[in-house]
Amino acid sequence: MKFSLKHTDPQSKARVGEITTDHGTIATPIFMPVGTAGTVKAIHQRELHQDIQAEIILGNTYHLYLRPGLDIIEQAGGLHKFNGWDKPILTDSGGYQVYSLSGNRKITEEGVQFVSHIDGSKHLFTPENVMDIQRTIGADIMMAFDECAPYPCEYKYAKNSMEMTHRWLKRCCDRFDQTEGKYGYSQTLFPIVQGSVYKDLRKKSAETIASFEREGNAIGGLSVGEPAEEMYATTDLVCDILPKDKPRYLMGVGTPANILECIALGIDMFDCVMPTRNARNGMIFTTQGILNMRNAKWQADFTPIDAELGGYASTHYSKAYLRHLVVSKEILGAQIATLQNLSFYLWLVQQAREHILAGDFVQWKDRILPVLMQRL
Amino acid sequence: MKFSLKHTDPQSKARVGEITTDHGTIATPIFMPVGTAGTVKAIHQRELHQDIQAEIILGNTYHLYLRPGLDIIEQAGGLHKFNGWDKPILTDSGGYQVYSLSGNRKITEEGVQFVSHIDGSKHLFTPENVMDIQRTIGADIMMAFDECAPYPCEYKYAKNSMEMTHRWLKRCCDRFDQTEGKYGYSQTLFPIVQGSVYKDLRKKSAETIASFEREGNAIGGLSVGEPAEEMYATTDLVCDILPKDKPRYLMGVGTPANILECIALGIDMFDCVMPTRNARNGMIFTTQGILNMRNAKWQADFTPIDAELGGYASTHYSKAYLRHLVVSKEILGAQIATLQNLSFYLWLVQQAREHILAGDFVQWKDRILPVLMQRL
Repeated sequence: MKFSLKHTDPQSKARVGEITTDHGTIATPIFMPVGTAGTVKAIHQRELHQDIQAEIILGNTYHLYLRPGLDIIEQAGGLHKFNGWDKPILTDSGGYQVYSLSGNRKITEEGVQFVSHIDGSKHLFTPENVMDIQRTIGADIMMAFDECAPYPCEYKYAKNSMEMTHRWLKRCCDRFDQTEGKYGYSQTLFPIVQGSVYKDLRKKSAETIASFEREGNAIGGLSVGEPAEEMYATTDLVCDILPKDKPRYLMGVGTPANILECIALGIDMFDCVMPTRNARNGMIFTTQGILNMRNAKWQADFTPIDAELGGYASTHYSKAYLRHLVVSKEILGAQIATLQNLSFYLWLVQQAREHILAGDFVQWKDRILPVLMQRL
Repeated sequence: MKFSLKHTDPQSKARVGEITTDHGTIATPIFMPVGTAGTVKAIHQRELHQDIQAEIILGNTYHLYLRPGLDIIEQAGGLHKFNGWDKPILTDSGGYQVYSLSGNRKITEEGVQFVSHIDGSKHLFTPENVMDIQRTIGADIMMAFDECAPYPCEYKYAKNSMEMTHRWLKRCCDRFDQTEGKYGYSQTLFPIVQGSVYKDLRKKSAETIASFEREGNAIGGLSVGEPAEEMYATTDLVCDILPKDKPRYLMGVGTPANILECIALGIDMFDCVMPTRNARNGMIFTTQGILNMRNAKWQADFTPIDAELGGYASTHYSKAYLRHLVVSKEILGAQIATLQNLSFYLWLVQQAREHILAGDFVQWKDRILPVLMQRL
């Protein structure tokens, strides 16, 4: 993987860059749609390419490991071959889902024992086997195995957890460096800064993570319930420590406002289930603001969902039709809403890139955010 | 509406024709995807056009009447404008759903009182208001309000029901002929032959229906549980009575075998939920046979779903990936399966048309049906 920093905004810490992988290049700042179980829910692969113009998608190690399982993915020749998405893929480490989805998890120095949410079977994730699993999935960008501490979190727990995450990182790097990709293309490993909302811990973690000198770095443990100001302060602090010449990935963030504010702080990569999950609940992001499609006010609004955004779903279908589909729990409602929301998120980061290059990023951000975040 | 009969097969009663409506022409024999609530489930409108190459879709009067409701559809300018499908639409009369979905229905000479399956509200369908409703929906082809007798059905019930359906037809035609389309394009009304599996009743009904001299005719009350041989015998008998110069629509039929056999008997139009509903349950129709995607045998089969059929879904995704999606209950599984099944059904009738014109329809049908109907 290569990262080339093209431009830094003189008025903020926003940057424009380019990540090159064996599956293609990614313009940054970028938003990565979440493809949990090897599918971005309700979206065809060609729609990701042509309509949404996604440049990289996520896969979830926890989900893919449980189903279809590594044996199937390896026989397919990796996740790209399995799901037919030939651009870059990033996989998380599985840690977050182990903490949030599975029952009876037990965290020890060795790793995490957990029980499958699907069939109750017992499993163990360790820093080593999570590297092996992501090697087998074949992600272009792999994530280190960490503990994502909850919020709020006692200082002592956060400190111990962070220190274990650092020890786990050493084991991840050792295993990663001793192994090779299985499918003939290169993979890279991003470590993850933890430390909850404690400044000294975040500083220590960022310094430690930076010292590993991997090709990119991530910030975890944010957007877990803390106030936005805490998120921004922590992101700012960490970005100042993480090396400038490597991409910075803020995990699991966030709203359009979170994304633009964190771009301004120097973040290059984002992922979040918000545009896809909220779509399935009828919450629509548009260039004019946020629409709750369950609201009766849309039932006779025959204007396009988002004429400004352009694109098929935005212009072909009306708000009234989408509302009907959402209220009737029709699959097409989820399809249209997801297409709209992801197209909007990719439009947002593409606009951010253009405005950073044009030199008016901060002005544009401050002007557009009140529009984008208003509830229509 | 115009129907022009292009060619009749000398070896069978199969025909190739063309229906012209104000929303475009339809080559027959044709299969019409079912778009229950104004959406063919899991399918974008452009996919209906470009991938499936549908020429006409169905809407269900019962569903559309209850949700979004006539007021919304009329404000939109009709169903075509509401859902963005600009080719022909056929609506059923709502009768079938009233009998199968709603509780506490009460059939009288006046019409059918029923209770909404959505909110328990009380409604009345009469031959007259069902015409008005379909005028408001704006279907190119409207269906008469009938009673679809259950199977098995006592002779006496079938006879009384059929006679009432004929009286209702007179009321439907009167209302239809006294009213006009609301949106500037023409609509037509098809009456429906009933009579259960009783030959004398079917003969009587077909003669009665033909005597109304509408622009097309339909056969209802089949594919409701009777043996296939009964369905074919009844269809054969009725087709011989219905006029040759008008399209014949066999409602709610059926499997690929049912469709080809009934094309051979002179049917021009079909609809059925089988390709869409079965898709959502993981049953896939292909040019090689029928696949149950839940079967473990597909879990490591990385060949395309249906290389022979061509098209995006058929060739871009593997059986193993589709199986994974179906087993994981992913929305994309329903999307891919539905695209495949509807593409297959439209391919089937397109092949039928070509073989009728080429003069080898019967030979082709007898050769291909054992392939298409085998369980792989």
